[in-house]
Amino acid sequence: MQYNISEKLVNMKPSAIREIFKSLTDPEIIAFAAGNPAAESFPSEKLAVLAAEIFAKDSSKALQYGITEGYPKLREQVTDRLEKRFNIKREESGVMIVSGGQQGLELTCKVMCNEGDVVLTEDPSFIGALNAFRSNGAKTVGVEMEEDGINIEKLKEAIKDNPKAKLLYLIPTFHNPAGTTMSLEKRRAVYKICRESGLLIIEDNPYGELRFAGEEIPTIKSFDDAGIVIYCGSFSKILSAGMRVGFLCAPEAVFQKIVVAKQVEDVHTNQFFQMLCAEFTEKYGLDEHIAGVSELYRRKCELMLGELEKNMPDCVKFTRPEGGLFVWLTLPESIDLQVFVKRALEKKVAVVPGTAFSPAESEISHCFRITYSTPTEEQIVRGIKILAEIVREMM
Amino acid sequence: MQYNISEKLVNMKPSAIREIFKSLTDPEIIAFAAGNPAAESFPSEKLAVLAAEIFAKDSSKALQYGITEGYPKLREQVTDRLEKRFNIKREESGVMIVSGGQQGLELTCKVMCNEGDVVLTEDPSFIGALNAFRSNGAKTVGVEMEEDGINIEKLKEAIKDNPKAKLLYLIPTFHNPAGTTMSLEKRRAVYKICRESGLLIIEDNPYGELRFAGEEIPTIKSFDDAGIVIYCGSFSKILSAGMRVGFLCAPEAVFQKIVVAKQVEDVHTNQFFQMLCAEFTEKYGLDEHIAGVSELYRRKCELMLGELEKNMPDCVKFTRPEGGLFVWLTLPESIDLQVFVKRALEKKVAVVPGTAFSPAESEISHCFRITYSTPTEEQIVRGIKILAEIVREMM
Repeated sequence: MQYNISEKLVNMKPSAIREIFKSLTDPEIIAFAAGNPAAESFPSEKLAVLAAEIFAKDSSKALQYGITEGYPKLREQVTDRLEKRFNIKREESGVMIVSGGQQGLELTCKVMCNEGDVVLTEDPSFIGALNAFRSNGAKTVGVEMEEDGINIEKLKEAIKDNPKAKLLYLIPTFHNPAGTTMSLEKRRAVYKICRESGLLIIEDNPYGELRFAGEEIPTIKSFDDAGIVIYCGSFSKILSAGMRVGFLCAPEAVFQKIVVAKQVEDVHTNQFFQMLCAEFTEKYGLDEHIAGVSELYRRKCELMLGELEKNMPDCVKFTRPEGGLFVWLTLPESIDLQVFVKRALEKKVAVVPGTAFSPAESEISHCFRITYSTPTEEQIVRGIKILAEIVREMM
Repeated sequence: MQYNISEKLVNMKPSAIREIFKSLTDPEIIAFAAGNPAAESFPSEKLAVLAAEIFAKDSSKALQYGITEGYPKLREQVTDRLEKRFNIKREESGVMIVSGGQQGLELTCKVMCNEGDVVLTEDPSFIGALNAFRSNGAKTVGVEMEEDGINIEKLKEAIKDNPKAKLLYLIPTFHNPAGTTMSLEKRRAVYKICRESGLLIIEDNPYGELRFAGEEIPTIKSFDDAGIVIYCGSFSKILSAGMRVGFLCAPEAVFQKIVVAKQVEDVHTNQFFQMLCAEFTEKYGLDEHIAGVSELYRRKCELMLGELEKNMPDCVKFTRPEGGLFVWLTLPESIDLQVFVKRALEKKVAVVPGTAFSPAESEISHCFRITYSTPTEEQIVRGIKILAEIVREMM
C-alpha cells in the first residue's frame, strides 16, 4: 500500500528532543537534553489533597465535557495574573485555556497561515514551535539572534525578503534554546516594525515566571495597543508538564477563530486538571510556589555556570541565563558538533545539537543546548566535567 | 486592525452543538441536544481511589512529560481490547493514545489531506468530524444514508465525481446523529470499493462499546488486510468525557506521521489520566463497568422510544438505536424545522437541528437529533410530550 501523505507532513520527522527523551530510559544517562521541568518543582502533595476534594465535591463536572474556551474560574484567574504580573490589559484580548503552550502555537499558525505562508522566527528557535508551523504548511525563516535578542536590521531585511510572512514568533524571555532575554529597547523596536508591516507577533512566554536574577522586563503584549500580539503561556514549568494545561491571550477576532480551531482539535482541555489548577491558585496563590521553583533553578543554574567557568576551555562560549531552564554553548569551529554530541552520549551525557533548533533545517551548527533542571547536583558537576574533557580531546 | 485569517478557518463558525451546550446553564432546560454521556456512567468513586494511589506512588511520572504515542501500559491494554473485543489484529497497525477521539479525526485529516482535497462522509454526519476536516482545508462531501448504512451506489458515484477524495469518514456503529448501524454486507462492500479506489477509511467508533440490543457486527478494521482503515475510539462515553482520552489504530506508515502531527499539537495526552485509565482497566477490567453503562442507556432509550411511539404523530419518523446515545427524527416536509427547534427551546426543550450535521452545510433539513443520555426519566417523558405537542400544533 502506497500512502499519499499530505505535502505539509510528508517530510516531517519526529522532534529530535522527544526522540532523545524516549531513549532516556537508561538511568545512568545524565539528562542535559530534555526540556523537562524538575520533578521536585511539582507540588504533588498539595495537588493530591485538592484532587481528592474535587472528586468528593465536584466529580460530575470534573469528568464531564467542558467549554472549549476553558474552565471559567481558571480563565478568570489567568486573566487576573496576566494583568497584575505582566501588565497585560484584559479589555483588549481574550484569554483561553489550551492543552499546553504547544497547542497555542499550533492553533495560532493554523488560524493565521495558509500553506506556503512564512513564519519568521529567531534563529535558533524552539523546535516544537518550528514543527508546529511546518505541520500547518507554513515555511519557517530564521533571523539572527544577538545576546539582547533578535537582530533588528536582519529582521527588517527578512520582512522585505518574505512578502508572505504572516507571523513573527519570539521567545523574548529566557529563550529556548539560547537562554537569553530580549532587551526592552528591542522589544519596542520589534513591536513598532511589526505594527508598521502588518505582521502579527506570537510572544511565547513559558518560562517568564521563572526569573531568578536580573530585572523584570515588560512583555511585548503589555504595550500591544494595536492588537497584534498573541501571547502564549503555560503551567507546565510551574505546576506540572504532564497535565498539558497552558493558556493564550489574543485579540478578539483572532481569539474567536482559535476557539473554533481548538474545538475541532480536542473539544477542550482536560477538565479535571483545569479545575485542579484553579483550586491550587485559589487556595495557595502562585507566588509562593513559583518563588520556591525559581530558587531551585537559581541554585542549579549557578552550580552549572560555576562548573562551566571552572572546567570549560575558554574557546567554548556559553550564555548566562537569568531564568528559565537552558544554557546555550558554542563550540569552536574546529570541533565537529555531530561527533561531539555522539561522544557525549557514549559517555552517558545527553545534549541537544543546535541543528535541531534551526528554522532553515540547516545541518551546520557549532552550538548545543543543555539544561540544569532535571539532573541532580552531582550529575551537573560530573556532566560538565565530561563535556569539558571531550572538548579538550577534540581541540 | 484587519486580520487576515487563513482561508481554511475564515468562514468556520463554532459548532452549533457546543454553542447550545454553553447556553444550557438554565437548569430548567431539558437537554436533548448535547452529546454528553450520562454523569452517572462515570465511575467517580473508583477513579478517586485510584487517583489517590497514583498521587501517592507515582506522582513524578504522572505530572511529568510523557511519550507522544501514549502511556505504554494503556497502549498495550487498548491494543489487547481491540484484538479481543473487536478482532483488530495487532500485527498490522499501531495504537496510540490521543486527546479524545476528536483529535484522532483531526490528526488523520491533517496527515492525509492537502488543502482542497475531499473527505467523503455519510450525510448526515458528526459535526465535530466535519469541522475537523474543514479546519484542515478539506472539503466535505456527503453521501446519502439508508437504515442499514451508506448508499453504496451513491458512494460509487461520489468517488467518481470527486477525484480529489482522499478519505471516507464513517461511523458504522450507532451512528451520530442517525443512531443507525451499518450492516455487515455494506461494511464489506464499502471496504472493497475503497480498496479498489485507493481511498482510506476513517472508522469512528466512539459508541461501539455501548450495545444494548441486537447482535454485534464486526468492525471494518477487523477485515483490513490492505491497511486502509484508521480506527478511532474513545474512553469518553465509558469512563469520562472531560478527561479527553481516546485512541486510534492506524497502518504503520500513517501512524508514524500522526505521531509527528500530535507531537506538535499537544506533545502528548494528559499523563495522569492515561495512567488512571490504565489502573482502572487493570484493577476492574472494562467489561463489568461497560455492561452497567449499557444497561443504563438501554433503560433510558427504551423509555424514550416508548414515549415517542405513544405520543408522536405517525407522520414523524424516528430511528430505533441498538446502542449509543442518539435518536434521529424526521418531520413531515410541511413543518419548518427552524421554527420547530425555536418553539421547542421556548418550551425549554433543546434539540439539534439536522442542518448542523450537513456535510454540504445545507440550510434545508427536516430532521433533528435528540439524546436520552443526560435527561432524567421524568424529563424524557415530559420532553417527548412537549415535542409531540409542537408537531401537532404545526401539522
